[in-house]
Amino acid sequence: MTRFALTLEFDGGPFIGLQRQAHGPSVQQSVEDAAFAITGERAIMHAAGRTDAGVHGLGMRAHLDIAKPFEPFRLMEALNAKLRPDPVAVLSCEVVPDDWHARFSCVGRAYIYRIANRRAPLTLDRGKAWQVTKPLDADAMHRAAQALVGRHDFTTFRSAHCQSASPLKTLDRLAVRREGEMVLIEAEARSFLHHQVRSMVGCLALVGMGRWREEEVGEALAARDRQRLGLNAPPDGLYFVRAVYPGE
Amino acid sequence: MTRFALTLEFDGGPFIGLQRQAHGPSVQQSVEDAAFAITGERAIMHAAGRTDAGVHGLGMRAHLDIAKPFEPFRLMEALNAKLRPDPVAVLSCEVVPDDWHARFSCVGRAYIYRIANRRAPLTLDRGKAWQVTKPLDADAMHRAAQALVGRHDFTTFRSAHCQSASPLKTLDRLAVRREGEMVLIEAEARSFLHHQVRSMVGCLALVGMGRWREEEVGEALAARDRQRLGLNAPPDGLYFVRAVYPGE
Repeated sequence: MTRFALTLEFDGGPFIGLQRQAHGPSVQQSVEDAAFAITGERAIMHAAGRTDAGVHGLGMRAHLDIAKPFEPFRLMEALNAKLRPDPVAVLSCEVVPDDWHARFSCVGRAYIYRIANRRAPLTLDRGKAWQVTKPLDADAMHRAAQALVGRHDFTTFRSAHCQSASPLKTLDRLAVRREGEMVLIEAEARSFLHHQVRSMVGCLALVGMGRWREEEVGEALAARDRQRLGLNAPPDGLYFVRAVYPGE
Repeated sequence: MTRFALTLEFDGGPFIGLQRQAHGPSVQQSVEDAAFAITGERAIMHAAGRTDAGVHGLGMRAHLDIAKPFEPFRLMEALNAKLRPDPVAVLSCEVVPDDWHARFSCVGRAYIYRIANRRAPLTLDRGKAWQVTKPLDADAMHRAAQALVGRHDFTTFRSAHCQSASPLKTLDRLAVRREGEMVLIEAEARSFLHHQVRSMVGCLALVGMGRWREEEVGEALAARDRQRLGLNAPPDGLYFVRAVYPGE
């Protein structure tokens, strides 16, 4: 068996999420089916993150174990050919040690969230950003976000379906900036709870609109109560940007 | 009658082009149908450019004459509501003098062309860029492009279906730069021939791949012969960016 690490890019729009589920198409199923078509082996794909339906990937990392010998570049090219027309692409492929695990070896994850802050409906960015029509104060959002950085109990910002053993997470970075009509939110941590980024973005948007005071973000965090969540942002604007591994 | 100037953004993917045609959906039809639903009037839309099927708009200008009185902001909001779910949005709307014409008053047009220079198939950018797998030398493309700037007979870079009276056009700017995996080509002129930008981009791509010498672009221009065209780039990567009017 050889372990191949993949870097994946995907449009989350047509998928029920990254992880294989019985009731619809997933990124995992697309990749596993492509691998099966090439190798005849039923390899299981493991990924750094399990993104939800509609969430996109720019640099998701994953791995597959394959018995048949393959030159990594050839495997990548074959996977990309078989993945068509699904909107999933393999950006890189390399052989990694057997103890390298896309999920368990991962020590850092980065997301970006795109808010299109405009009145006009989205056309080219439809499904690729969250449209917020009310003007957002990105500077106020950035200041408010700093209350979430550090090690905290993120119960307020956690989905009821979260499978994590603990609500304690260390958020390394949460930065908000405006680029024209886009408000961009970057989040970095070793790992995140289910819906954590979308929940944080939703509350920051309330601050940006002036519906929440800046201090309310920290107050909601301190409450450790899902009922205090102001708003969960939609998946459309969320992108898994990169996964970090020791020595990379 | 009041003349309303509109700024339009659209995803060209589902359209047979900007201009109304009997055999398929057009941007013009979407806007005219939305206007009819609001006003009960069959207004004709005139636009600064007649973009082809698959070509996108970021800041297309157009106008409509409407008899019923409307506050421009209300008209814009109503058009955007009626345009759903078509991927066309009105970004701005203003009253203009009766002699202001979106097409005939326009004194400058700007396009941008996006080439995704990578091996992996496109996912999030599918239909929104031209994928070129062979590495492109953007600096060589930029140098070669300068042979096209100025007043020339652009017969080589003109579609057989071009309706322009003359092949003489003045190209004000043609600039090529790389941003990561994207190669961006910006073109500005008072007006362009049919397929001119795509034809210029196609030939520059040949230079970028090393299949054409830099001088061949100028030689193809001087030949004034459509047979000398190297390659016509696909519509996917082309965006109408802005139209310029006197006094704006």
